[in-house]
Amino acid sequence: MRAITFIEKLRFEPDHPEPMPTEGECIVKVRLAGICSTDHEIVKGYMGFRGIPGHEMVGDVVKGSPEWVGKRVVAEINCVCKTCDMCQAGLSSHCRKRTVVGIAGRDGCFADLVAVPEHNLHEVPETIPDESAVFVEPIAAACQIIQQVSIDHRSNVVVVGSGRLGLLIAQVLAKTGCKLEVVGRNPKTLLFCEKKRIRSTSVESLIPRNDRDVVVECTGSPQGFDIALSLVRPRGTIVLKSTYADGTIPNPAAIVINEINVVGSRCGPFPDAINALARRDIDVSPMVARSFPIERGLEAFQASRQPENIKVLLKINPR
Amino acid sequence: MRAITFIEKLRFEPDHPEPMPTEGECIVKVRLAGICSTDHEIVKGYMGFRGIPGHEMVGDVVKGSPEWVGKRVVAEINCVCKTCDMCQAGLSSHCRKRTVVGIAGRDGCFADLVAVPEHNLHEVPETIPDESAVFVEPIAAACQIIQQVSIDHRSNVVVVGSGRLGLLIAQVLAKTGCKLEVVGRNPKTLLFCEKKRIRSTSVESLIPRNDRDVVVECTGSPQGFDIALSLVRPRGTIVLKSTYADGTIPNPAAIVINEINVVGSRCGPFPDAINALARRDIDVSPMVARSFPIERGLEAFQASRQPENIKVLLKINPR
Repeated sequence: MRAITFIEKLRFEPDHPEPMPTEGECIVKVRLAGICSTDHEIVKGYMGFRGIPGHEMVGDVVKGSPEWVGKRVVAEINCVCKTCDMCQAGLSSHCRKRTVVGIAGRDGCFADLVAVPEHNLHEVPETIPDESAVFVEPIAAACQIIQQVSIDHRSNVVVVGSGRLGLLIAQVLAKTGCKLEVVGRNPKTLLFCEKKRIRSTSVESLIPRNDRDVVVECTGSPQGFDIALSLVRPRGTIVLKSTYADGTIPNPAAIVINEINVVGSRCGPFPDAINALARRDIDVSPMVARSFPIERGLEAFQASRQPENIKVLLKINPR
Repeated sequence: MRAITFIEKLRFEPDHPEPMPTEGECIVKVRLAGICSTDHEIVKGYMGFRGIPGHEMVGDVVKGSPEWVGKRVVAEINCVCKTCDMCQAGLSSHCRKRTVVGIAGRDGCFADLVAVPEHNLHEVPETIPDESAVFVEPIAAACQIIQQVSIDHRSNVVVVGSGRLGLLIAQVLAKTGCKLEVVGRNPKTLLFCEKKRIRSTSVESLIPRNDRDVVVECTGSPQGFDIALSLVRPRGTIVLKSTYADGTIPNPAAIVINEINVVGSRCGPFPDAINALARRDIDVSPMVARSFPIERGLEAFQASRQPENIKVLLKINPR
């Protein structure tokens, strides 16, 4: 099968071996896949990943149990043991023995076929087009924030980072009715916010006032934390979404002095994300900048690094 | 009056000007004062403080409103405006315009006399000796943890750092009935824990298992955060107590991946600390290693840096 692989460097392989499903797994034929910041971090060495990257996708089940074959699906990325203390405690996304699709110990979806546990699959309602369904994984990650932190119409919230994830987070948070602002560097993405009636501010014109209840840091860079610290109020919350291969958090004394709550936030609930798309709470179509066939996957990675391209998709087996 | 001052370097001044109380302030004649890690950080440049350091003390009100004069008191360290948004929101310890006794913008208690707002005073019950009352401020800081984080008999808790603050925190947390362990480097302080029937482990023999619900980081050094990250379970809480002049938090990706909650924690409730001492929940007497008259304050600072001296006091006007 065709696949993008990362072993020291990224390459396109026209004839990669097909995945062999193990007990309880299905094979999904990938229609579309999304390139995300984590994929770029993987290419920089994040998680020491080797294999086929890619964890955002929509596709069709082509092999596995009869109840799934033929269905159009998205798939949760944490593949879990169901027996460890975390799984038993209902925290299976933190399974001690987990593999993560395209991120840790398991091939991902930048390929014709990907093996995933049947347990991870979610059928996509017909009303959601492929170009939206491919965003379910990052929208779920955005939805995770409101699972972890209480945000309502009284909350003063700022999203630091107007990249791919930031724009999804902003749309999810906007639905809470909170007082919302997005801070970013990219005029194109800030304009996107304004079109969605979400207040946006460029980093350069930011006035740090330490008056926000909740600051979501999703810049993907350690500098974002400094900005977050300058915005959050004493006893406020910084939600940390960025993962990067290297970096440190500066100025931990400020966390103590202002008694800040820093909440790490990772994967989230797929059903909430699917519902948000079905209800049209979130509009992802203006975010897709370019699509590439898998053979031009390396070019797609390059394009995805350009700020003007909010989201770049791989058309692998499009309908 | 006699005072220890810090202006570029620490010195003893035999004839420092006496403090002038402003509206609403009392003058306290200091009996005993405690040297804490924050004082050492101030000497390293923390907060850019200049003046008389010292914020842990017990003394007698000698000037001020008649209802206070003659009383033996301890004093909260945050001096607040009562009008800013934080004060109005009930978060006066985060007052925007606050000064902090001996830490920020206001002289402290390493002197014969110190001015403090009357509002900050708490009378000390007769049953609490001076040598215990001088610990009220750091005990309050320890009590703050159980105000911020839910800890009960089911909680698996570890205190990283067996220094002055760590030993107080351990005793406060022990009263919750939680499964408690103290991790430290100093055999003397670990022995102190064992005598209090608190399980203790040396850093060297620590097995990082990522299985603790709550980790309190009070080592006073950035390395402590790394240890905390190796102990806390996914979705667990790290309480950050250390403040240091320099330093960064390494490996923020681990906070995100394991969805850790990092809670900064600073000053706490004085009434809880006074009650804990009155009930003899906390035993501080074995912690006092040495006492020095204020004239030997610089020597006291030196002694306080030695690991074998858990707590060093300044006897300023002892009874």
